Amino acid sequence: MSSTFIGRSLRLSIFGQSHSEAIGMTLDGLPSGIPVDRELLQTFLNRRAPGRAAWSTPRREEDRPEFLCGLKDDRTCGAPLTAIIRNTNTRSADYSQLKILPRPGHADYTAEQKYHGYQDYNGGGHFSGRLTAPLCIAGGILLQELERRSITVDARILSVADIRDDSPFLCSVKEKPFPVSDDEAGTRMQQRIEAARAKGDSVGGLVECIIRGLPCGIGEPLFDGVENQIARLVFAIPAVKGIEFGAGFSSTEMHGSENNDAFCIRNGKVETLTNHAGGILGGISNGMPVTFRTAFKPTPSIAKPQQTVNLQTMEEETLSVTGRHDPCIVPRAVPVVEAAAAIAIYDLILGEQRWN
Amino acid sequence: MSSTFIGRSLRLSIFGQSHSEAIGMTLDGLPSGIPVDRELLQTFLNRRAPGRAAWSTPRREEDRPEFLCGLKDDRTCGAPLTAIIRNTNTRSADYSQLKILPRPGHADYTAEQKYHGYQDYNGGGHFSGRLTAPLCIAGGILLQELERRSITVDARILSVADIRDDSPFLCSVKEKPFPVSDDEAGTRMQQRIEAARAKGDSVGGLVECIIRGLPCGIGEPLFDGVENQIARLVFAIPAVKGIEFGAGFSSTEMHGSENNDAFCIRNGKVETLTNHAGGILGGISNGMPVTFRTAFKPTPSIAKPQQTVNLQTMEEETLSVTGRHDPCIVPRAVPVVEAAAAIAIYDLILGEQRWN
Amino acid sequence: MSSTFIGRSLRLSIFGQSHSEAIGMTLDGLPSGIPVDRELLQTFLNRRAPGRAAWSTPRREEDRPEFLCGLKDDRTCGAPLTAIIRNTNTRSADYSQLKILPRPGHADYTAEQKYHGYQDYNGGGHFSGRLTAPLCIAGGILLQELERRSITVDARILSVADIRDDSPFLCSVKEKPFPVSDDEAGTRMQQRIEAARAKGDSVGGLVECIIRGLPCGIGEPLFDGVENQIARLVFAIPAVKGIEFGAGFSSTEMHGSENNDAFCIRNGKVETLTNHAGGILGGISNGMPVTFRTAFKPTPSIAKPQQTVNLQTMEEETLSVTGRHDPCIVPRAVPVVEAAAAIAIYDLILGEQRWN
Amino acid sequence: MSSTFIGRSLRLSIFGQSHSEAIGMTLDGLPSGIPVDRELLQTFLNRRAPGRAAWSTPRREEDRPEFLCGLKDDRTCGAPLTAIIRNTNTRSADYSQLKILPRPGHADYTAEQKYHGYQDYNGGGHFSGRLTAPLCIAGGILLQELERRSITVDARILSVADIRDDSPFLCSVKEKPFPVSDDEAGTRMQQRIEAARAKGDSVGGLVECIIRGLPCGIGEPLFDGVENQIARLVFAIPAVKGIEFGAGFSSTEMHGSENNDAFCIRNGKVETLTNHAGGILGGISNGMPVTFRTAFKPTPSIAKPQQTVNLQTMEEETLSVTGRHDPCIVPRAVPVVEAAAAIAIYDLILGEQRWN
Repeated sequence: MSSTFIGRSLRLSIFGQSHSEAIGMTLDGLPSGIPVDRELLQTFLNRRAPGRAAWSTPRREEDRPEFLCGLKDDRTCGAPLTAIIRNTNTRSADYSQLKILPRPGHADYTAEQKYHGYQDYNGGGHFSGRLTAPLCIAGGILLQELERRSITVDARILSVADIRDDSPFLCSVKEKPFPVSDDEAGTRMQQRIEAARAKGDSVGGLVECIIRGLPCGIGEPLFDGVENQIARLVFAIPAVKGIEFGAGFSSTEMHGSENNDAFCIRNGKVETLTNHAGGILGGISNGMPVTFRTAFKPTPSIAKPQQTVNLQTMEEETLSVTGRHDPCIVPRAVPVVEAAAAIAIYDLILGEQRWN
Repeated sequence: MSSTFIGRSLRLSIFGQSHSEAIGMTLDGLPSGIPVDRELLQTFLNRRAPGRAAWSTPRREEDRPEFLCGLKDDRTCGAPLTAIIRNTNTRSADYSQLKILPRPGHADYTAEQKYHGYQDYNGGGHFSGRLTAPLCIAGGILLQELERRSITVDARILSVADIRDDSPFLCSVKEKPFPVSDDEAGTRMQQRIEAARAKGDSVGGLVECIIRGLPCGIGEPLFDGVENQIARLVFAIPAVKGIEFGAGFSSTEMHGSENNDAFCIRNGKVETLTNHAGGILGGISNGMPVTFRTAFKPTPSIAKPQQTVNLQTMEEETLSVTGRHDPCIVPRAVPVVEAAAAIAIYDLILGEQRWN
Repeated sequence: MSSTFIGRSLRLSIFGQSHSEAIGMTLDGLPSGIPVDRELLQTFLNRRAPGRAAWSTPRREEDRPEFLCGLKDDRTCGAPLTAIIRNTNTRSADYSQLKILPRPGHADYTAEQKYHGYQDYNGGGHFSGRLTAPLCIAGGILLQELERRSITVDARILSVADIRDDSPFLCSVKEKPFPVSDDEAGTRMQQRIEAARAKGDSVGGLVECIIRGLPCGIGEPLFDGVENQIARLVFAIPAVKGIEFGAGFSSTEMHGSENNDAFCIRNGKVETLTNHAGGILGGISNGMPVTFRTAFKPTPSIAKPQQTVNLQTMEEETLSVTGRHDPCIVPRAVPVVEAAAAIAIYDLILGEQRWN
Repeated sequence: MSSTFIGRSLRLSIFGQSHSEAIGMTLDGLPSGIPVDRELLQTFLNRRAPGRAAWSTPRREEDRPEFLCGLKDDRTCGAPLTAIIRNTNTRSADYSQLKILPRPGHADYTAEQKYHGYQDYNGGGHFSGRLTAPLCIAGGILLQELERRSITVDARILSVADIRDDSPFLCSVKEKPFPVSDDEAGTRMQQRIEAARAKGDSVGGLVECIIRGLPCGIGEPLFDGVENQIARLVFAIPAVKGIEFGAGFSSTEMHGSENNDAFCIRNGKVETLTNHAGGILGGISNGMPVTFRTAFKPTPSIAKPQQTVNLQTMEEETLSVTGRHDPCIVPRAVPVVEAAAAIAIYDLILGEQRWN
């Protein structure tokens, strides 16, 4: 299993299962002297934490990281930074049956096959969305450092099911309990989520992310481009099934003359009139905002009866998933996307070779 | 610059510029004894090679790889496999101006910034689509080996501009000069490409890929999942701006009860009734076909006049790109997507730990 | 800082400082289903643990690992395995001065320069020999698994100062409190250590390691050979200044006709009459025992007054190191060398490609 | 097989077999704009090239690299740098028997086992010392760049068989055909080599290397220290069986009070009175010269009859190695050690994080 992100400079190791003693992360390769504002980090983590709204699982976790090492006087000391979160509120009883009756759309079946029955199936084990918490610890710390460099990473809900917020993404929605730009659309989204839950069902949606202030020249052609790197990290988030940068899929219906972003001079600097490229040309940042959209499938764990297979009797059976699950993970996924983007970007910047 | 793909088992190094002495690749980590059918490989490379159709650049290259090492009696000998292609048909004169007048939508500007003016701008240098040829050498060899294991990788054109081939992707279209399932749609696509060229413009499109025969249990959660790995490699192809797996973006508008693929028993084996997951659950293959779609933006190099900036005078100017360019790279991109997918899949399979 | 070992299959992340909340390790990439015998592991860790003999620091630590994740019913579940050890018995007061007065032979000065004063200097921070405990957790687990495969890794003290144990290394000395083959020599070694301590001084020595049962064909030419891999891991142990394989340095004084190991047939299998190659030819194991010797310098932290520099006043001063230190770390280093060798070997075996 | 060095910033891929079309290397990750002086590089390569002296194999190769890509106007353009050397003077006939009768001390047997008989045995294939030529291309280019930064890497012959040059290593011996400091000792060394050859035998020896001008703070604790990194690269050179830094093995016989290098002030800078640490404390450079010694075993290929095993009949036989071989590779190994050290050091420097 490779739960270690090997970047150009950073090594991020994420560990833990939904119901293990603890989950956590080790971030190796950080420069020394970087301040870590724990309160700010907690505020960030709370945006992801469960049990805070109607659309979220009732499983309540404090998600308060304990820093084991890597800090001195709340600054990085150059040694690997490790933080853990204890798993307190676990109900293993809920999951005992899933080893035999895999949930459709979930990793129960593939994990059973891959790990020959030795996997920890409780709460989804290492495949649980809970593992995005350590990702947010790493990302939250890097977001703080990026902001010190005037690089901001903002995500928002772009759509839930077929309800879309088409208002421009001008300012951060980090403060909002339901992170959309158009609150009226947000209300309808929440109603749609509530309706799904009422039917024991779930819905998916889109998260949009925009990175401002990234200088030109970050990223590499071929395998370590900004797109490759962000995609590699974003697909580490459970339920993500697609990603597009800039105009993305819609660019396939444009002519080159429409899609190409004309260069222009703004306040003496080179910019582009449009930003269909999403701030990336040849895998390298061009100084314009980096924009991408991520597709989240509906939560697979639903109360509605579904057909599955009994892996012992090899007979088809009907399953109704109990336990505590989000009818829509999109709202809580917003800070996770920010975290993934921050890790991707920070690592590329750090990897830039200065010795020339 | 990182043009070295560091997989779980393979290291693929891709080198060369559009107008350098040669381009090529080194594939390190292959088991010994793998047969390489050069004729079959050439047939594969020819599907990508330029100058073979109306919709392709008139630049004609033989694209005949010379194997420098790694083979003995046409089988891998365990040592790194290196193959190169000489650049014969180069016209550097065409590109001299692009260092000062970057092409909109192209990497001219970002390369200039990143490499401080030292980059090789001729023909797009290392950013040229020509670098997909070495990718196809590696992928073509691995495709042969995957087929020996009854794993097939097939791609097709799904759309060009707004013309879509909605017929089911049942059988390979590798033999076709214009790789679509529905030839009638293919004809209209080619007309649309021709229309764009006539106006000195270009169009984009979608490539769909399906991997059949992949056993269950390949891929890892978090950073090395099938999605992460394929995305990382596919975004190495110039002009790719988006990727989605299975139902992808459309899954965001489904309910969990629709999107979840119910498990069933078929001929005594566990399968799913639908395949919205695109054969991947929790980053791990579930035994169903792996399916994904890739979005290609329209070729940035067009004859139509466009606004750009003169990097010397820092004044806005109008540019009309000369040189030889495809009005649509989608047809030639089809085998490249197959190559990228083959590298991704083969590397994950090879990385599987057998010592248990 | 790179405290993450990126092997061919394993990723080992080691974290912690001598006086941080905890130290620990994450081992990622283990197959699922591997049993972990905690008692056996504790026995192994106790061989390294401090405060157990006259020649060891009086700092007493239980070194009892807490497993946070990665195990289910005491078997690996496929997810990353993380274990930590709390730092209980810390006396930071001892170290406050070392930031200004770096200890000769220690990393105080280089850490101060590299981390710009942000490093955690208490107890040597991340540079402390204490960080070999997590290395032993990883190695101890892998040693158990290697033994199940009939691969044994045994180390012993070969010399302390100028006292050498020249008896053949026939059987394990793991049970012995002072791990030498010739106990009479061992007694004189301990006397020499005691004599050094009495003078407020320290001594070094040699550790010999032998790996039996390794099949032929493990390791790679060039950069991932058995020698490269073992050396890379052994030099992660503080105080190691040299390593040699087989006849090592003495082979430089032999003729080829003496040094070459003649092939022969023993019980129908290919073996060699001698083993000057230390079981490695061209970086690859040849089926004979892998043997190497590691040179440990004398512990730098000594009570004897030494000349150093005051980094504030930039004046030369005299320093007498207080705190608790081993007069000779060689005895406690023996299991650490076994751990490093086990990680190196296990990773190479796991990296072997079976898909051929 | 892993013939790709994955450093902190550089990826060096080395390819080729002794008798393949060509051998070569790709260096990926170099900053753009680095000048490459081809004449200077050729002078460096000639120091390694065969057929230039009595103590070298009569196989004469021009070893003139052809640069395929990565350069523009003789400066790095940011794209991977690939250079190859054609294999011209090959005599495969010499080697046909070695597949059945492996040479003692050589990789013939382990390669046969590892690659299941598919390896290229001609001339030792990928295991040939000839593969150090591409290593020298990479190292030679980096040595030029290091010198521009006032960092010099010098190696010399310290001993051949039992003849040692104990004179201090004050100045470079790069110009000398036989690179020793004390030419009188050098004469005796050459006589000893000649004597060995006359008997159809071979001898080994020691190479000493000193790196001057390396700033303090380069290298990492644990796995990426200066020692780990240099060792990993030096063990990629065939015939290397040991390495030691600073006082190395002799430090094991010193007291801490002798071995510790006292800090002092010289011209306002912090230095040490002695340099037993070889310029490395805690894996990090301390500003003093980095010194290490490498042990080369005697060349395994000798004319003298040796016992081996016939892998077909599984019977013991006598073998007398024909073909062209150095009676002592130490003189030609001197530039190779410089190259390996340069790659190790340059990569660590490039990996230093400047964004703080």
